[in-house]
Amino acid sequence: MLATMIHAPRDIRAENRPDPVLHTDHDAVLRVVAACVCGSDLWPYRGVTRTREPHPIGHELVGVVEKVGAAVTSAAPGDFVIVPFSLSCGECQSCRAGFPSACDHVTGFGSTDRDGHPVDGAQSERVRIPLAQHSLFPVGRSEEELEAAGLVPDLLALADVMSTGHHAAVSAGVGPGDTVAVVGDGAVGLCGVIAAKRLGAARVVAFSRHEDRAALARELGADDVVAERGDEGVAALRDLLGGELADAALECVGTEQSMDQALGSVRGGGRVGFVGVPHGGSQVPIGTLFRRNITVGGGMAPARTHMAELLDDVLSGAIRPGRVFDAEMPLADVAEAYAAMDERRATKVLLRP
Amino acid sequence: MLATMIHAPRDIRAENRPDPVLHTDHDAVLRVVAACVCGSDLWPYRGVTRTREPHPIGHELVGVVEKVGAAVTSAAPGDFVIVPFSLSCGECQSCRAGFPSACDHVTGFGSTDRDGHPVDGAQSERVRIPLAQHSLFPVGRSEEELEAAGLVPDLLALADVMSTGHHAAVSAGVGPGDTVAVVGDGAVGLCGVIAAKRLGAARVVAFSRHEDRAALARELGADDVVAERGDEGVAALRDLLGGELADAALECVGTEQSMDQALGSVRGGGRVGFVGVPHGGSQVPIGTLFRRNITVGGGMAPARTHMAELLDDVLSGAIRPGRVFDAEMPLADVAEAYAAMDERRATKVLLRP
Repeated sequence: MLATMIHAPRDIRAENRPDPVLHTDHDAVLRVVAACVCGSDLWPYRGVTRTREPHPIGHELVGVVEKVGAAVTSAAPGDFVIVPFSLSCGECQSCRAGFPSACDHVTGFGSTDRDGHPVDGAQSERVRIPLAQHSLFPVGRSEEELEAAGLVPDLLALADVMSTGHHAAVSAGVGPGDTVAVVGDGAVGLCGVIAAKRLGAARVVAFSRHEDRAALARELGADDVVAERGDEGVAALRDLLGGELADAALECVGTEQSMDQALGSVRGGGRVGFVGVPHGGSQVPIGTLFRRNITVGGGMAPARTHMAELLDDVLSGAIRPGRVFDAEMPLADVAEAYAAMDERRATKVLLRP
Repeated sequence: MLATMIHAPRDIRAENRPDPVLHTDHDAVLRVVAACVCGSDLWPYRGVTRTREPHPIGHELVGVVEKVGAAVTSAAPGDFVIVPFSLSCGECQSCRAGFPSACDHVTGFGSTDRDGHPVDGAQSERVRIPLAQHSLFPVGRSEEELEAAGLVPDLLALADVMSTGHHAAVSAGVGPGDTVAVVGDGAVGLCGVIAAKRLGAARVVAFSRHEDRAALARELGADDVVAERGDEGVAALRDLLGGELADAALECVGTEQSMDQALGSVRGGGRVGFVGVPHGGSQVPIGTLFRRNITVGGGMAPARTHMAELLDDVLSGAIRPGRVFDAEMPLADVAEAYAAMDERRATKVLLRP
């Protein structure tokens, strides 16, 4: 089967690899219907994080179950499923509390599972899913029906970006009437706009300096777009809001500058939901939190939990997070998919095996 | 009148000072019925924070209004009032959102007000209160009635420690059924125990290594007390909870060790409410927040907001936060009050002018 391997920075290859098999009773094997490239996949691609040896890559997929181990009863062969970007046991305290991304046995694509077996990447024709009982999320409709309705991109977005944008909004306590600032105009930030509106925000202000993304942000629900960044961005926000600030901000980038901008965008007692993977010196300044009574929450999204809340709105078309995909390519062209995103020719590329 | 001045570390004096007068239409003058010494007053006393020149000290009081400026309609001469430890305008965005501690004009006792006039300390016979319209909180009962009912210490606790303990619990999202760990066995931590129980926590675990405070924590509602600290404290908590961790933790100290202990005490997706004034290298490690999905909120308590919620329960005797006072002295003995708290002979001393 064809599977994507990263060998070194800017060396991404779709290669022939052995078909996956069940290693334990807790595994499943899926045929991938659609996968995609994440902004965080660009970090090893750009050499920001180190690639010690070639390994499979990709962590977002929807697919059809082909085989399940004897202990897996949550899905059966033929079921169309979403797989959250982190795999989890469903039994530990964090899982039971609804935070499978902090599972005691949390397992990532492209890593090694708790039994010591290597885990496939999602940018593949087929994948083995360990911890399958809790990690498979059946949609309850057939592949044919979902393809005909054009819902595959929207469901794929639930695997990561839409669940992550929703996590930012939930972690920021967004509720009816709130004014919400969204820092980051990538796929997650755009999904944050959708999530904030869905949770009842009265006014959503997106920070974006790219015309195409600003237009999409508006289409997805942003009431205003601010092009400035940093302190100038906060000043522009304050002007826009008649001298006031937002009730909540969504930090969807992960840098020191973006966190500062999010913290600066909220009033005293405001809330910041952060989902950008921290890098580049990002920190939470405790003095600012203390003095301005700001709450900071978020982290790696419990996608398995959130997709259960979001599924009905995706199936009904009430939200269309698949709009963040602005290109689709065959899996064989995965190297071009990375290049297009790296060069900002695409926001997010959907891959078809 | 007698008023407390700090001259240098361990040099606290009750001195004769001029009676306060109204400087603006927005001021009030009060006769202090009771004041007290805060754990944070011990910082300049111990030389942890610097005292550049002698200044008035103390920020917790209840009193009776003697005079009000023309613009003050919220209270009248003769009213028994609580004064929150930070004074606020009531009109800016943060105040309107319920966070007067992040007020655009926030003013502390012993500092300088927005008109440039020096602000008295609360450990005095009389005080001028700027921003009086929003900063006076009338209790609605007479001094005689409240003294007869023995409620003065409980009402005084609302000026800071009980509102602050409540803020820790609210910021940690404590709700029915939660297991809550409380880090810090000073007056604020003890009030945090009261607050967590009041908000419905099923199980409250207090960290304390002092027998008298542990006993008081139990009396105020703690179900268990853990004497160990740091990693050993977290391990002991996990043993106590059958291998699990708390849903929420209250950080009521402000040091790096106490914050780490609070963060270590909660499960994935747990919440930490922090109200300990950050010092000694305290920080919020963003990697831990991200990986374990922990929410951190809190800061300087919006006491003016919280006392409105807590007042009825104090007047009815449902909660008795005045129990944190284990000594009472005349204002003239204020130096001994500081010494008793510094040497841990007292948890918190109430002062009577």
